[in-house]
Amino acid sequence: MIYPKIPLAQTVVQLCKAKGVKHVIISPGSRNAPLTIGFTNDKYFKCYSIVDERCAGFFALGMAQQINAPTAIVCTSGSALLNYYPAVAEAYYSNIPLLVLSADRPEHLIGIGDGQTINQKNVYGHHVLLSANLRLDEQSQFETVLEEQKGIQAHNEQCINEAINVALFKQGPVHLNIPFDEPLYERVEALSVAPKAINLTVTPKQVEDHVLESCIKDWNAATKKMILVGANQPNEIEQKWLNEISEDNSVIVLTETTSNIHHPSFFSSIDQLIAPLTEDDQEDFCPDILLSFGGLIVSKKIKQLLRRYKPKQHWHVNPKMAYDTFFSLNKHLELSPNQFFKAFLPQVIHQDASGYKKKWTKIKRWRQKQHECYLKEIPFSDFKVFSKVLRSIPQDYILQSGNSSTIRYTQLFPMNKTLEVFCNRGTSGIDGSTATAIGCAVVRNKPTVLITGDLSFLYDSNALWNDHIPDDFRIIVINNQGGGIFRILPGPKNTKNFDTYFETTHSLTAAQLCEMYGLKYKAVSTEETLLKALDTFYVNNGKPKLLEVFTPKSINDEVLLNYFQYIK
Amino acid sequence: MIYPKIPLAQTVVQLCKAKGVKHVIISPGSRNAPLTIGFTNDKYFKCYSIVDERCAGFFALGMAQQINAPTAIVCTSGSALLNYYPAVAEAYYSNIPLLVLSADRPEHLIGIGDGQTINQKNVYGHHVLLSANLRLDEQSQFETVLEEQKGIQAHNEQCINEAINVALFKQGPVHLNIPFDEPLYERVEALSVAPKAINLTVTPKQVEDHVLESCIKDWNAATKKMILVGANQPNEIEQKWLNEISEDNSVIVLTETTSNIHHPSFFSSIDQLIAPLTEDDQEDFCPDILLSFGGLIVSKKIKQLLRRYKPKQHWHVNPKMAYDTFFSLNKHLELSPNQFFKAFLPQVIHQDASGYKKKWTKIKRWRQKQHECYLKEIPFSDFKVFSKVLRSIPQDYILQSGNSSTIRYTQLFPMNKTLEVFCNRGTSGIDGSTATAIGCAVVRNKPTVLITGDLSFLYDSNALWNDHIPDDFRIIVINNQGGGIFRILPGPKNTKNFDTYFETTHSLTAAQLCEMYGLKYKAVSTEETLLKALDTFYVNNGKPKLLEVFTPKSINDEVLLNYFQYIK
Repeated sequence: MIYPKIPLAQTVVQLCKAKGVKHVIISPGSRNAPLTIGFTNDKYFKCYSIVDERCAGFFALGMAQQINAPTAIVCTSGSALLNYYPAVAEAYYSNIPLLVLSADRPEHLIGIGDGQTINQKNVYGHHVLLSANLRLDEQSQFETVLEEQKGIQAHNEQCINEAINVALFKQGPVHLNIPFDEPLYERVEALSVAPKAINLTVTPKQVEDHVLESCIKDWNAATKKMILVGANQPNEIEQKWLNEISEDNSVIVLTETTSNIHHPSFFSSIDQLIAPLTEDDQEDFCPDILLSFGGLIVSKKIKQLLRRYKPKQHWHVNPKMAYDTFFSLNKHLELSPNQFFKAFLPQVIHQDASGYKKKWTKIKRWRQKQHECYLKEIPFSDFKVFSKVLRSIPQDYILQSGNSSTIRYTQLFPMNKTLEVFCNRGTSGIDGSTATAIGCAVVRNKPTVLITGDLSFLYDSNALWNDHIPDDFRIIVINNQGGGIFRILPGPKNTKNFDTYFETTHSLTAAQLCEMYGLKYKAVSTEETLLKALDTFYVNNGKPKLLEVFTPKSINDEVLLNYFQYIK
Repeated sequence: MIYPKIPLAQTVVQLCKAKGVKHVIISPGSRNAPLTIGFTNDKYFKCYSIVDERCAGFFALGMAQQINAPTAIVCTSGSALLNYYPAVAEAYYSNIPLLVLSADRPEHLIGIGDGQTINQKNVYGHHVLLSANLRLDEQSQFETVLEEQKGIQAHNEQCINEAINVALFKQGPVHLNIPFDEPLYERVEALSVAPKAINLTVTPKQVEDHVLESCIKDWNAATKKMILVGANQPNEIEQKWLNEISEDNSVIVLTETTSNIHHPSFFSSIDQLIAPLTEDDQEDFCPDILLSFGGLIVSKKIKQLLRRYKPKQHWHVNPKMAYDTFFSLNKHLELSPNQFFKAFLPQVIHQDASGYKKKWTKIKRWRQKQHECYLKEIPFSDFKVFSKVLRSIPQDYILQSGNSSTIRYTQLFPMNKTLEVFCNRGTSGIDGSTATAIGCAVVRNKPTVLITGDLSFLYDSNALWNDHIPDDFRIIVINNQGGGIFRILPGPKNTKNFDTYFETTHSLTAAQLCEMYGLKYKAVSTEETLLKALDTFYVNNGKPKLLEVFTPKSINDEVLLNYFQYIK
């Protein structure tokens, strides 16, 4: 077997292998050559070459999001690792394990005007769980240096072990900055180091008895309880707990689309339910106790409402951290939802007499009925397109949603429960949705479809510069010729100033990018052609496909705003 | 006139105007709406809308590089400002004034799980000259709050003034992080604040008499003196000093292509001169005193040589800082080269008896002769293409060079002295050369041509998503189907591993991107068609143009390596 000659490179690669880091995304460079040699010559690793580091970062993120294990990104020195930063920040706020391996010049060549050199140490600031600078290992015959060398090797092994352990157990990005001196390209046939993997066992925390007792007491005493679920891995919550919760008349469960939680009695379209509420209804809707779990919340409306009419108590169940999103957090229950429910639910007394759930279920049903009526009345528009597109997705697909309008529209429609839904809601950027979706598609054995807006798609166009896109990968671009979200926000519309600096209107299409990168392309701009295109869109013809749906930007905002009136 | 209602936004905009920040690049967003409203409704500002913040950053960098004054980039909260980072780092190491204005959520909405929110404070770490967090201004009727409000306003004005002064006088990037609370879109017709601009006068340092005397004494005593000039603005150095220096037989002047310095007796192709040297010659070439000025050095070979055979003294002339690039720096002369030469040169005694310059001029002439012979012998290749392309550029153009191979090849050829040459050598990244070149083209009244490699061009493909590209803008992509530089570096070639992870070979072209973004496209792959295409390439036909030159990747490295043998 071939190994890089530099022991530090061997150490990094061997420890990644020992600790199960399997997917390695490499961007071309010279300074990182020792790592590239190491990873690509060991069949254990699945390596991918991606030139644009911004896309490489999101591609890795999409993989790690699916496998829940650290994915490595490897780049050269200089501005390369800065291009990872958007993906690193997304990983940080979405709790996705990402292992950044940046090659660096040796210390004595930094800050002296050498090329392709920046101050790489701790460059991701507060947006990584751990940042460590490995130390250059120099070969020497002198005994004193050998002693020092042992110390360096021990330091490096410790840092690498710790970084991978932290990424895995605390679920987030970590950064190892790795100095290499020339020669960088030398290869050897035997390892010169035998680094030791340190495996960590983490015992989950238990909730203290008196905390649990106080929870149960308060819960049983309250007549209005709301469970709000943010982004969540599919099948993370045991269905029996969901069933159990669904039987309590004093509890309503609001699920975001990214929660991947389904029950007929839950409330899955939050904005549909609450947008048309009067002030009195809003106050009445607000619970005594809010119990939340999962990641960040998409719905602005529920955030505004719960900040305005604060619940008396807010408990967040999460083994890692709790955000005080509604300025009323009073309990952080540091364990997984399953653990909590296991301890908690068996002691809960159902309150059959509470009218809370009944009232809101009635409103929900009315909204759903009105929703269906509205769909029949409206012209071709973003709203209509989302309804058709979401219904078209075959069973058991993975749906990756772009940010901004896309995920907000998606939340208004019923979601097929066999789908798994993901969206980069850590930073909610439009910068990497396509690369993330491709990363997801590559590691899963289910087909993935990405639904995205035009700005988001164009922003991440380099994501298609990727040799690994599976044939069954699908993209649906809903092209309303600009940032449609800005038409829904306040401020004057239909001025040149608005078009240019807010909506940023354009007349670009995805056609040329598809031709360039070998995707089968189809464009539609009417309901009839859309339905016809969707009929065969998911059929595998040996090539990934992109369907571009042009919608009339001038009416999209009106159709959406009228919707919230109509469903009152 | 229309102003944003929020006083802080008024303050930022008014101070930018008072301090002459004219060009403002805005990326769409909601949080930055108050700034967008302010900048775009005042005709003083020239505003540009760019969606991809990475490109927006480099576009602004290209402008600031040309006008030597701060250019503002304005973005929304979240990962948006992370996408500026590559351009910010380039600005930092290239001493280019860039004013980052990032909108942020108010303090109480950070770290509580709100959408599109990261930890924006000081996010650029060591890569900005100044980073300040402005404070939210809240309107109130209460007197105590009014007092506090005055303090906040004073703090904000102070920070903004200081940031722009630092960017201007210390020439580099600065970051103002600006919190805004909702409502964001309100407009008013009169200003509610009258911020005061603080103008700074900086008196240039004078070199102390004893330092100058010691310089003159040592210089006059030395028989071998070398002046090495890195990246420099065109016309920065007065020609009379260059003429004066050229008359001294004990001085050789090595100029990089980015130095924008020309004299027939100078040595403008450093690698051509020194690559074929024997060890003895290398030692002989090394000066007693090395005097350097300008920015970072491209030539790796001169860095290696001067590190190996260290000059006895190294003086760097720069008002801001001095890098110890050759590990022999003993004097940092903190003033501009013109100031230094004005004080220094009149006291220097020319050493007519020194054979230093004569010897190297003879070698230079031989190399130049061999260079011309070699050109006649070689087949169509990168080397030949660069010779033809560089000769084709009309008088008085601006040449923007991509990084990696492009700038290294460019340095081997004689440069038309009416051209101005620029390259992002601060971090030497391949991430923003196209956007930089377009920014340059937009602010200058001379036409700009960008020469770039295929990876660099594809990396920055979103740069073309820009409504401001002038019709006379030209791009020449030298497409060798991958990272040609890797063929020149050590390590085995022509394996699948090499192709995939080092050279990252591809079969993409620029054709579809040109069609998408409205550039006139032409592809050539022979000398004959290249020459024919160049004949009409610079003619203005009302559209920017891109010429793609396909070269045979399998022979490019051989032609280059043989070159250094041939010119011996």
